[in-house]
Amino acid sequence: MLASGEIIRTGGKLMKDVAGYDLTKLLVGSEGTLAIITEATLKLVPPPRAKKTMLAMYRDLYGAARTVSRIIEARIIPATLEFMDNPTIRVVDDFAKLGLPLDMEAILLIEQDGDPEAVERDIALIEEICIAERADRVQVAADREEAERLLTARRSAFTALARLRPTTILEDATVPRSKIADMVLRINEIARKYNVTIATFGHAGDGNLHPTATTDARDHDEVHRVEQAFAEIFEASIELGGTITGEHGVGIVKAPYLEWKVGSAGLDMMKGIKQAFDPHRLLNPGKLFAKETRKRVVLHHE
Amino acid sequence: MLASGEIIRTGGKLMKDVAGYDLTKLLVGSEGTLAIITEATLKLVPPPRAKKTMLAMYRDLYGAARTVSRIIEARIIPATLEFMDNPTIRVVDDFAKLGLPLDMEAILLIEQDGDPEAVERDIALIEEICIAERADRVQVAADREEAERLLTARRSAFTALARLRPTTILEDATVPRSKIADMVLRINEIARKYNVTIATFGHAGDGNLHPTATTDARDHDEVHRVEQAFAEIFEASIELGGTITGEHGVGIVKAPYLEWKVGSAGLDMMKGIKQAFDPHRLLNPGKLFAKETRKRVVLHHE
Repeated sequence: MLASGEIIRTGGKLMKDVAGYDLTKLLVGSEGTLAIITEATLKLVPPPRAKKTMLAMYRDLYGAARTVSRIIEARIIPATLEFMDNPTIRVVDDFAKLGLPLDMEAILLIEQDGDPEAVERDIALIEEICIAERADRVQVAADREEAERLLTARRSAFTALARLRPTTILEDATVPRSKIADMVLRINEIARKYNVTIATFGHAGDGNLHPTATTDARDHDEVHRVEQAFAEIFEASIELGGTITGEHGVGIVKAPYLEWKVGSAGLDMMKGIKQAFDPHRLLNPGKLFAKETRKRVVLHHE
Repeated sequence: MLASGEIIRTGGKLMKDVAGYDLTKLLVGSEGTLAIITEATLKLVPPPRAKKTMLAMYRDLYGAARTVSRIIEARIIPATLEFMDNPTIRVVDDFAKLGLPLDMEAILLIEQDGDPEAVERDIALIEEICIAERADRVQVAADREEAERLLTARRSAFTALARLRPTTILEDATVPRSKIADMVLRINEIARKYNVTIATFGHAGDGNLHPTATTDARDHDEVHRVEQAFAEIFEASIELGGTITGEHGVGIVKAPYLEWKVGSAGLDMMKGIKQAFDPHRLLNPGKLFAKETRKRVVLHHE
């Protein structure tokens, strides 16, 4: 439903449709700022016939990062390819008592699904890659029960971090897959610089990291330092060819950073689209577009 | 490059990016009316390890159409799923001397690719479906050479049709996959009504048909009837839940029909986007937007 109250239908069951601009994809991810979506047709993907789960642990962060790149180079697209850094491993182990080795710099949780033969072949190849990249320990789950145990580490990451301090701020800076190790090291550096605690986990297969700050909203000085740290993390992400948000959206908090990613001309085009759809600014006001773009933390060299 | 001369970068190597509106997908398929694309990053898909090709021939058009639906229901996504109707079969056989049975109402050309085991399994299942749906003849190519022979029929469809008369007009009306048989019958009816020759072939797996009129541009009366027939074909396509263009785009010729598909509110939104990007209408003028929407041929019942 448009701001005018008129109803449009776009997308649907067609496999192909190039009649005019792709309004469907424009509306998806527009955070309620262009129209109100009252009905959606979704495509269901059949559940895979087989699934295997494995964990690989690394003393060397770059070994974990190279493993991600080499899996993709081997033309394998894992169903799951999740990453946890050392601070996350420590907190998770303390919370879930999993006996994880605390001296590891990174853990990768990897799953493949699909046809049984293809899953076996892919997992065997991924195991070889992990070993070649000097993983210290590689565990392939023998059955669903063991798989569930391996999954627990990644699944409890947010909960484990959230119980540490009163306030948890989770972001979703995303970089090209090849830049994951660089980004994790930049996040660690930035956390030290501002004297704040940030643990990082996330979807390594998508380059989508979740640097997560644990802090206390009542401590205004610390929260201010967390904010500065995140601003610098967004800037680092963009410098590495990434974005300020991989999946969460811009909302209010990241609106002052949007121009860093899309440029002033890109932001003007987005404002033009907003104006065309919602000239009276009725829809989700305050989201996506900030009164002012935030000043960059460090000088940006192109 | 925007109409203003400013350059924006959108999309790229990131697997995930939700920073603002999706300008990439808005620009793709905008037919040069919003910006000039001077650089593109493409994703390459690795070639499949195996491939198999088969032909299935039907006396019953609905048998062919049900085969398409049942393949999809069986959760098989064929690499190729092409359709030719009887007028196309006749012209192709006359052109390429393939010995096709001229009394068939439809031929499906089906290919599957991927891992060898999966390809074998899928092709065997598809063959079963074809036989269950009363295909008169099913041929699975034993080797690449035989596959090439089977492919010749579909590959020569356009060439064979194009040599019949001085002018060939090929459209790309697209319907939901479940409506293919209905659409082919509607096209045949419409061709008879306007006394014009229209053969239909196309990508059945996508519901994307190519009704192709053979005519003579010098015969103004006949060309007018062809135009009227296509207008009615577009209308039939929309009535069946389809679109006026599946892959070719709107351009100049289909601009007067765009509102039939997207509605007046949808068209207004598209004009608003055009206005935001190109207020002075410098980019590809005359495309996508017509001075006037064409009047519907038949009364449209919702």
